[in-house]
Amino acid sequence: MIDTENKSRTELEELGEFTLIEHLTKDFEIKNPGTIKGVGDDAAVIDNGGKRTVVSTDMLIEGIDFDMTYTPLRHLGYKAVAINLSDIAAMNATPKQITVNIAVSNRYSVEALSELYAGIYLACQRYDVDLVGGDTSSSPVGMYISITAIGEVDPHKVVYRSGANVHDLICVSGDLGSAYSGLLILQREKATFKANPNYQPDLASFDYVLERYLKPEPRLDIIKFLNDKDIIPTSMIDVSDGLASDMMQICKASGVGCEVYEEKIPIDYATTMVCGEFGKMLPVSNALNGGEDYELLFTIKQSDYEKIKDCNEVHVIGYITDQSMGTMMVTPQNTTIELRAQGWKEKEN
Amino acid sequence: MIDTENKSRTELEELGEFTLIEHLTKDFEIKNPGTIKGVGDDAAVIDNGGKRTVVSTDMLIEGIDFDMTYTPLRHLGYKAVAINLSDIAAMNATPKQITVNIAVSNRYSVEALSELYAGIYLACQRYDVDLVGGDTSSSPVGMYISITAIGEVDPHKVVYRSGANVHDLICVSGDLGSAYSGLLILQREKATFKANPNYQPDLASFDYVLERYLKPEPRLDIIKFLNDKDIIPTSMIDVSDGLASDMMQICKASGVGCEVYEEKIPIDYATTMVCGEFGKMLPVSNALNGGEDYELLFTIKQSDYEKIKDCNEVHVIGYITDQSMGTMMVTPQNTTIELRAQGWKEKEN
Repeated sequence: MIDTENKSRTELEELGEFTLIEHLTKDFEIKNPGTIKGVGDDAAVIDNGGKRTVVSTDMLIEGIDFDMTYTPLRHLGYKAVAINLSDIAAMNATPKQITVNIAVSNRYSVEALSELYAGIYLACQRYDVDLVGGDTSSSPVGMYISITAIGEVDPHKVVYRSGANVHDLICVSGDLGSAYSGLLILQREKATFKANPNYQPDLASFDYVLERYLKPEPRLDIIKFLNDKDIIPTSMIDVSDGLASDMMQICKASGVGCEVYEEKIPIDYATTMVCGEFGKMLPVSNALNGGEDYELLFTIKQSDYEKIKDCNEVHVIGYITDQSMGTMMVTPQNTTIELRAQGWKEKEN
Repeated sequence: MIDTENKSRTELEELGEFTLIEHLTKDFEIKNPGTIKGVGDDAAVIDNGGKRTVVSTDMLIEGIDFDMTYTPLRHLGYKAVAINLSDIAAMNATPKQITVNIAVSNRYSVEALSELYAGIYLACQRYDVDLVGGDTSSSPVGMYISITAIGEVDPHKVVYRSGANVHDLICVSGDLGSAYSGLLILQREKATFKANPNYQPDLASFDYVLERYLKPEPRLDIIKFLNDKDIIPTSMIDVSDGLASDMMQICKASGVGCEVYEEKIPIDYATTMVCGEFGKMLPVSNALNGGEDYELLFTIKQSDYEKIKDCNEVHVIGYITDQSMGTMMVTPQNTTIELRAQGWKEKEN
C-alpha cells in the first residue's frame, strides 16, 4: 500500500487496479446481516430469505477496454453482457437479470446504439437473461458501458474464491490464451492498416481466436455440467486476467499454494499458430498472462475426479498445496517456477 | 416514436431520453418468472423465494450531470449514492447494498478519489447500506459514476407507479423546487466568477437550496413513517424530473388522470427568495419542472388520510381522476391548466 497520508497528490498510476480499490474501500464495513459477501470475489452474495442473490458489475470504456476500430458494436454489446454473466457463473450461480447503463457521445447515432443493443439482446436471448433497468445518457467523449448482472443460487451451492483446500484438484474449462491471441492479430492488422489504408486485412484463418476475443461466452454450460454431476467446486474464479493472476487470487483468498503443470494447460492449436506468426512468443505466456478468456478456473475435491474425468471441456491442470509451497508451475523439463501475476490491465499501462 | 427504419443516421438528440431507451429495448421480453418487474419503474423487482429484491441503477457524467467547478467531490459521492437509494425508496423498499463503478481521467489524483469515496462512505453509513462491489478504471476524459442499488421489501408491500386509482389522494414529501433553485445560484455564481476571477461568491444566505441541490437525501424516513402507520401507497415515484413530469409518469402507468392544486404544492421560502432574485421566475415553475428534489410523490387511498394528515413532512396536493380528465393543475384563480412535462434533461438540451 502506498502511503498517501503525507502527500498532497498521488497519481492514480502509482497504485495498481487492485491496490486502488482496496485503498478506497478500506474503511467500509458490512452492516447488513443479509450481505453474505461484499467486495473481494467475482460477485457479491445477498441473502433475503430465499435463494442467494448474486450481483456483479463491470464497466467497459472506449479507448481503455475496447478499441472501436476493430470492435463491431454488436459484438461489443454481446461481450459486455457475457463478461458479467461470467462473473455470476464463477459463483456457481445462474444469471437471471442485467441492468445496462450506457453513455455515448453524439458521434454515435441511434442506429449505432441499436447495433449495440442488438448484441445485448442476443446475449440475453442466448442465456435467458432479462434486461430490467438502466439508461442511455450522453457523454462528452467516447462510449462507456456499465453493466450489473444479477443471478441466483441455492444457499449451499455458492462457491467463493476462498474455499480451496490442500490436495484439491485444479481444473480449468475450454482453452486459455486464445482471446489474447485474437487481440494481438487485431492490433497487428490495425497497425498495418494505419501504415497502408488500402490494405485489406485477411482475417479468415484467425476466426477462432478473433471470436474468442470479440465474442467470449460465459461458461454456463460448465455450471450446468457441475450441477448435473452433483459437484460443488471448493473454489472458483473466471479467467479474466490470465491463469497466473487468477490462480493466485484463489490461492491468496484460500490461504493455500498450488502446483500447476505447464503441459496440462489447455492451449488451442490456433493460439500456437498465432504465436508462431509472432516469432518468439510462447503460447503458454498467452495462457498465463493474456486474460479475457472467461473460462472457469476451479478446484474440486479429489473424490470428485471420477465424475469429471471424461468431460472434454474440463482439464485438470494441477493441485492445491500448502501455502508455504508457494504458487508454482512445473515445466515439462520438471523445473518449478513461481507464477507471477501480470494481468491484462497492468500490461497495457 | 421516430421512424429510424428508412434513415441511415438518426441523431441521438432527435429522440428524447425516454423515447431512446424505449426504442432500444422494445424487442426485449421478460423470460424469467422471477423477474416481477423489468424496465419502466424506479427499480426492477425480483423474486427469488424470500423478500423481493429491488434493483436500481444510474450513471452520473461529468459535464452532463454535474459540473466540477461547483460540485465538491465529497458531495458528489454522497449524491450519487443518495439518488439511487431514492429510487429504491420509491418502490417502498429499504436499500441494503450498492455497487459502484467509477471511471476517471488522470486529471484526478488518488486523494481526489478518496474524497469522492468519503462521500460514498458517508451515505452508506447514514443509510446503513453496504458497498459490495464495483471498481475504479481509467477514463480518457472526465469522470463517470455508475451506481447500482439493491434493496428489499416484503412481497405485498412493493409499490409501483401503476397502482393509482380514481379518488386516491396525491401526496408529496418535503418541498419542491429548492434543488433547482440551488443549481440556479451555483450557475449564476460560476458565470460571475468567470467574468471576474477576483469575485468572492457570497453563498451563505443560500445554504438551504444549495444543500438541496448538492446533497439530496433519499426520503427513507417517509418509507419508515408509512410502514409504521401501516400505509401502503397505491403508487409512488421519486421526484427527479420535476413534479409535472413525475406526476404524469404515475398517471400514464396507472391509466388515470389527476388534479393537482397549485397552492398545495409545498415550496420553501428559500425557493421563493431565489426566484425573487431572478426576477420574473415563478417558484411553482421550479417545483413543476426543476427536478432533482428526490422527494417522494405517492398516492394513497382516501381511507388512509386520517393516518397521514398530521405528518408535517407529507402534503396532500390533489387527487386522482379518470384518465379522460387529463393531468391537470388548478391555479389559485381556479383556472385549470394541463401539466406539461419539461424534465430537467430536456431543458438542458
